[in-house]
Amino acid sequence: MSNFVRLRLDLAYDGAGFHGWARQRDLRTVQGEVEHALDTVLRTQGISLTVAGRTDTGVHARGQVAHVDLPAELVAAGRATAPPEEALARRLNGILGPDLRIRRIRPAPPGFDARFSAVWRRYCYRIADAPEVVDPLTRGHVLAWPRPLDVDRMNEASGALLGEHDFASFCKKREGATTIRTLLELSWARTAGVVEATVRADAFCHNMVRSLVGCLVAVGEGRHRPPWAAEVLARGVRESAVTVVQPHGLTLEEVGYPADEELATQAERSRVVRTLTT
Amino acid sequence: MSNFVRLRLDLAYDGAGFHGWARQRDLRTVQGEVEHALDTVLRTQGISLTVAGRTDTGVHARGQVAHVDLPAELVAAGRATAPPEEALARRLNGILGPDLRIRRIRPAPPGFDARFSAVWRRYCYRIADAPEVVDPLTRGHVLAWPRPLDVDRMNEASGALLGEHDFASFCKKREGATTIRTLLELSWARTAGVVEATVRADAFCHNMVRSLVGCLVAVGEGRHRPPWAAEVLARGVRESAVTVVQPHGLTLEEVGYPADEELATQAERSRVVRTLTT
Repeated sequence: MSNFVRLRLDLAYDGAGFHGWARQRDLRTVQGEVEHALDTVLRTQGISLTVAGRTDTGVHARGQVAHVDLPAELVAAGRATAPPEEALARRLNGILGPDLRIRRIRPAPPGFDARFSAVWRRYCYRIADAPEVVDPLTRGHVLAWPRPLDVDRMNEASGALLGEHDFASFCKKREGATTIRTLLELSWARTAGVVEATVRADAFCHNMVRSLVGCLVAVGEGRHRPPWAAEVLARGVRESAVTVVQPHGLTLEEVGYPADEELATQAERSRVVRTLTT
Repeated sequence: MSNFVRLRLDLAYDGAGFHGWARQRDLRTVQGEVEHALDTVLRTQGISLTVAGRTDTGVHARGQVAHVDLPAELVAAGRATAPPEEALARRLNGILGPDLRIRRIRPAPPGFDARFSAVWRRYCYRIADAPEVVDPLTRGHVLAWPRPLDVDRMNEASGALLGEHDFASFCKKREGATTIRTLLELSWARTAGVVEATVRADAFCHNMVRSLVGCLVAVGEGRHRPPWAAEVLARGVRESAVTVVQPHGLTLEEVGYPADEELATQAERSRVVRTLTT
């Protein structure tokens, strides 16, 4: 019987060339590309990744995390000149396109599960709201917006959305799945002229970040007053007044995990919550 | 007789899609695109731009500056709802591709010449020298380098190159043109893990920034000792040991001009220097 080793992969990708994270037959996806590269390098078939944050088509990641379980002898078979995980990362990067990079591979600590051990996911949404700050070099991951945004108004509106709520108004409903989430952070700031939203939650439902941003942009440009965001939240149903902004302004920046000794407990807790609520 | 108005244009572009700045028959260039857009919007023919820093194929700009002289009645003919220069910028941006943006158009102050009034040009060269800092989202303007660089060594080597020198060792020679330049700044720093060179000079000769960077990268990765850069400079002839690094890591960030009242004097001075030395 084979001994399995769990590896943690840290990944970054430009979402423009992918139909999102999740493997799909005949479409280029991040999961599909990495699994195929692993199968090629290790001469295996059907290797399967577990991911922290499934990103949609066009959404980017700088801090995506995944894990994979591999037969121990395959990992050890890497070149002896470097730690085997480093050699594996280098070989994968040699196969993968420049829009998808393996930043690091490490042995996962005991109890680690890329999805269930995660305690939060942090996204950033970037908007250039004036011709002076639109930068052709970052146009792939910064949305160009034709009207100026008032960051103070957006922060005022955002404050009322923090905490545990049913975010059904901001989610694409999935049959039988809960839309209750804990929003830990939602703040706006200007960095070198560009408006940046930091959005952090225990987890997100489908389209949630892009709907929240769409709602707050409407406040920021003056189409709605700041209390409108809380009103939308309270209504509890999706409404057409809230636009889902384009995916290319969105980047998964970081996934938070507890200290190593709490990984297994956190994974257990997440699994129970998901079972109760989905 | 027509009255002419001189406009200052601030531009940004992703160099990947252009055969450099300078107009060329049948090739897509920045100058060609902007001149063509001006001719289209103003229904003129043969409008000609003067630029501060001619960039090569693949080199980017965030702070490029150009000027153009237009018949006064054409500028005033813009929509009355906004300053005519703003309206002109908006109409040009409506025609130009997303990889080329007019960030601002203003009436040029008296005596202003985009090329001859400039007192310095500042470039940045960016290098990601470890898999952990290679970012697919910035791969178009950050060079991925396979070996780690020692920024302290590079700064030590760079110091010896500052000041007025004949930079023939770092320039592609042009018949009858001087290669004497004043290097005002050449420094290296890490920003979020990425190695960034700031290179500022009164002007640059052809390939100069990319040759300087190539020389200093050789020092940074340990192929040469820091004094080697000064030795190369002193030799005064181009040598094969100095590599011209790839263009896509290079961005023209800013052009420096003196206070308005000194613009004309500076332009006069630059013209004299160029006449004496070229």
